Amino acid sequence: MANVNAAIRPRRLSSTLLLGLVPVAAAWFIVRPLIDPVPPLPALYTSIGFSIFALIATLYLVPALGPTFIKARLSGRDLLKIYPDPIPESLGLVCASIYILTLILFIPFAFSDALTLKSDTTPEGITVSEFPHQKLSVYLSSLLSLLISTMLGFLDDVFDIRWRHKLPIPIIASIPLLIVYFAERGNTNVVVPLPLRFLLGSLVNLGPLYYIYMSLLSTFTTNSINILAGINGSEVSQAVIIAVSVILNDLLYLPWPIDFRIPVHLLGSKTEVEFGGVWSAGMAYGSKELVERHLFSLYFMLPLLAVCVGFMYHNWYPARAFPGDTLCYVTGMAFSVVGIQAHFSKTLLLFFIPQIFNFVLSCPQLFGVVPCPRHRVPRFEADTNLLHPSKTLFLKPPSRLATFILRVLYTLRLIDITTHPETGMILESTNLTILNFFLVRLGPMREKQLVQVLICAQVAGSVLAFVVRYGLAGLVYDGDRR
Amino acid sequence: MANVNAAIRPRRLSSTLLLGLVPVAAAWFIVRPLIDPVPPLPALYTSIGFSIFALIATLYLVPALGPTFIKARLSGRDLLKIYPDPIPESLGLVCASIYILTLILFIPFAFSDALTLKSDTTPEGITVSEFPHQKLSVYLSSLLSLLISTMLGFLDDVFDIRWRHKLPIPIIASIPLLIVYFAERGNTNVVVPLPLRFLLGSLVNLGPLYYIYMSLLSTFTTNSINILAGINGSEVSQAVIIAVSVILNDLLYLPWPIDFRIPVHLLGSKTEVEFGGVWSAGMAYGSKELVERHLFSLYFMLPLLAVCVGFMYHNWYPARAFPGDTLCYVTGMAFSVVGIQAHFSKTLLLFFIPQIFNFVLSCPQLFGVVPCPRHRVPRFEADTNLLHPSKTLFLKPPSRLATFILRVLYTLRLIDITTHPETGMILESTNLTILNFFLVRLGPMREKQLVQVLICAQVAGSVLAFVVRYGLAGLVYDGDRR
Repeated sequence: MANVNAAIRPRRLSSTLLLGLVPVAAAWFIVRPLIDPVPPLPALYTSIGFSIFALIATLYLVPALGPTFIKARLSGRDLLKIYPDPIPESLGLVCASIYILTLILFIPFAFSDALTLKSDTTPEGITVSEFPHQKLSVYLSSLLSLLISTMLGFLDDVFDIRWRHKLPIPIIASIPLLIVYFAERGNTNVVVPLPLRFLLGSLVNLGPLYYIYMSLLSTFTTNSINILAGINGSEVSQAVIIAVSVILNDLLYLPWPIDFRIPVHLLGSKTEVEFGGVWSAGMAYGSKELVERHLFSLYFMLPLLAVCVGFMYHNWYPARAFPGDTLCYVTGMAFSVVGIQAHFSKTLLLFFIPQIFNFVLSCPQLFGVVPCPRHRVPRFEADTNLLHPSKTLFLKPPSRLATFILRVLYTLRLIDITTHPETGMILESTNLTILNFFLVRLGPMREKQLVQVLICAQVAGSVLAFVVRYGLAGLVYDGDRR
Repeated sequence: MANVNAAIRPRRLSSTLLLGLVPVAAAWFIVRPLIDPVPPLPALYTSIGFSIFALIATLYLVPALGPTFIKARLSGRDLLKIYPDPIPESLGLVCASIYILTLILFIPFAFSDALTLKSDTTPEGITVSEFPHQKLSVYLSSLLSLLISTMLGFLDDVFDIRWRHKLPIPIIASIPLLIVYFAERGNTNVVVPLPLRFLLGSLVNLGPLYYIYMSLLSTFTTNSINILAGINGSEVSQAVIIAVSVILNDLLYLPWPIDFRIPVHLLGSKTEVEFGGVWSAGMAYGSKELVERHLFSLYFMLPLLAVCVGFMYHNWYPARAFPGDTLCYVTGMAFSVVGIQAHFSKTLLLFFIPQIFNFVLSCPQLFGVVPCPRHRVPRFEADTNLLHPSKTLFLKPPSRLATFILRVLYTLRLIDITTHPETGMILESTNLTILNFFLVRLGPMREKQLVQVLICAQVAGSVLAFVVRYGLAGLVYDGDRR
């Protein structure tokens, strides 16, 4: 390994910068909340501090453990490169382990309000313990689900499970979440949109359907990130931008010491959003419950963002490490966990607009209407170093349904097709993925450009999501929705 | 694989018998508790029902998944056999997965008392929710620890971690247990033995030392099973007998409908143990708290016993499947979990007498005083099909400390040594393990006999444990200890 290819040599880390971060993280974010006067939301400071440690750990451990993964034959060559060197695979396991360990170590801080409160005895002599056991159960069941998805993701990497068998994996991982939700008789009511209220009333109890909805949500968030993969940085960049979007959304509900307004009337909403004062945050409208839910979400999203950013540094083009399915599973499950536990699953889905687009576009291939090759990643042309859309060939004429779908997609300019000059029969079509769609519309490009385009699309999707959530949603839901 | 060696062909399963068990498990143990009149302890019936399903699942899945493990290169040849065929390794992962899934699905039943109770509203208008959130947190943190040890055990199998690096693994796995114990301000007092009370009082608060004790307990239970390994069935048979011992101990604390006495005065105790009446079990002395703790222990031990028995069927000499480190980690952690959460860690340690013996005997090799070869399993002689004690050779003369230790062990007849006929210097010694000790004392034997000897020793250890716990302990602790 002495004369290793420069393109796969681990990226350098600035030790000074990183070690400089340690005292900052420790001093400001971990020690600060313990010193009087205690800031409002002390656990949030701690969470930021832990996240910085998680970032540093990921930055160091991913390259340090790479050779161990290669030795355990968890490696693969990068199909879109000219060099054949093995790149360590499944490094998402390292990210997931750091993430989960951070969340476990954070437990005493998340419940620190409780630790400082002593048991109160009421005048009637009844001892009331203030410890939020119920919140702790919710937190622990979320951790269990994350751990199971990590485990199953890694098993998928080791045993290379076929994709049809993989689909239910997130359902298994979501069992602890659902079981604890059930055991605690969680709320299964949903708010009905205004236009349907004359029919259904303002609340509908979905009952068992709610559990099916929750497990499908985790299936979607997990697999939709997993199928939008194949180029350096694609999985982790999606996770980073969705995590940032969720964090921004959570921040809207926190009590801010500053006072400002967001002019949402410009987006078509009837209400203004105003910030200011402890426990009277803009969107929380003074509800301590809502603030706590979004704090819960932040506790899970901040370290996730940290490990993803740390991993992205090594996974960026040209990649020094691959995430494996593990990273997709754990990030997808983390998004589901916060969407379900903090009750903003509809908002969460809005942050998945590019994934929904990719999933809908992929459906004809996923469900076998159009033939699906084993890999649908763009095709690499070594001479020009450019990516071209990959194609599926029709060895036998496509069915009438397939022909109809492909023609519609072609008319919408989502794919490119080649037809027989005489019969008009479709001979080949580009594969139905968002990455190929970008290449069809924007022309061949380098791998790094393609992942940048994907990132732009993801950011645009999130901006659209905020517009829909805080602008247009006012048209179908009333103000105090949760 | 058509003409496979008969010795490694999967053992046959009687489908009739096993499928016959399904309706029994379902009807009697799962449906029965739901029918009026509800039996006392309905969840215990359910736990037995789930355990039967876990047993069936293990019996079927271990051979079914064997080829997948071999394909993923998780296999090894059996060093104590003449045939070189690969045997699937790490099948403990299958056991652990079934075990943990069973425990997760059991959650609503474990807390079923709570599900049937409605929230009560006191006359003062305060709503008191009866849901045992605190018990659920304890259950979930135990599951997290089990899942982490499964995960780390499997990583150990995949990455083949060196033993010095493995030692702290159980400490990592016990973090959720400790953190939740801490967050809930768990009791860190211990009862002082009678002879020391004049010094320390009757209760001592160990504080942080208690947490160190808990993490060392999990390190011990995990690693002590792991180092007593190497012959077919050795790991799993230890787990089976310890699990049975814990279950028997738990049963002593349950409310039995029958009334009987155990003549513990014959063992030297001053008190009699009497059984009978709901919530007035023998050793529980009417304490609902104690009954619930031992129920908790049963919920974790019954499915563990089931998967271990199922796996033992395939791991018995000649083994069709190897447990890998995964099984040792998950079983060791399960014992720690019940010992800690149900507060009988001292009693638990008594069930580890053979492991303690093996550990103490091994210390000179573990800590490098006596040279330690990579494998210390007995040596197989293919001609006679017998196992002989394996030996460590002294390439350079042993240190004075090593010579002293070896001479003492030899005098105690725990090992065999070969000395130079003239100088008296030690040239070689049998390896310091309980398996080699059996071979030194009882002579060379077949592998199956050796594991039977180990099982007998384990059973004898448990009998001794019960004598000490319920006989002699009365001399150093008073009656109402918990």
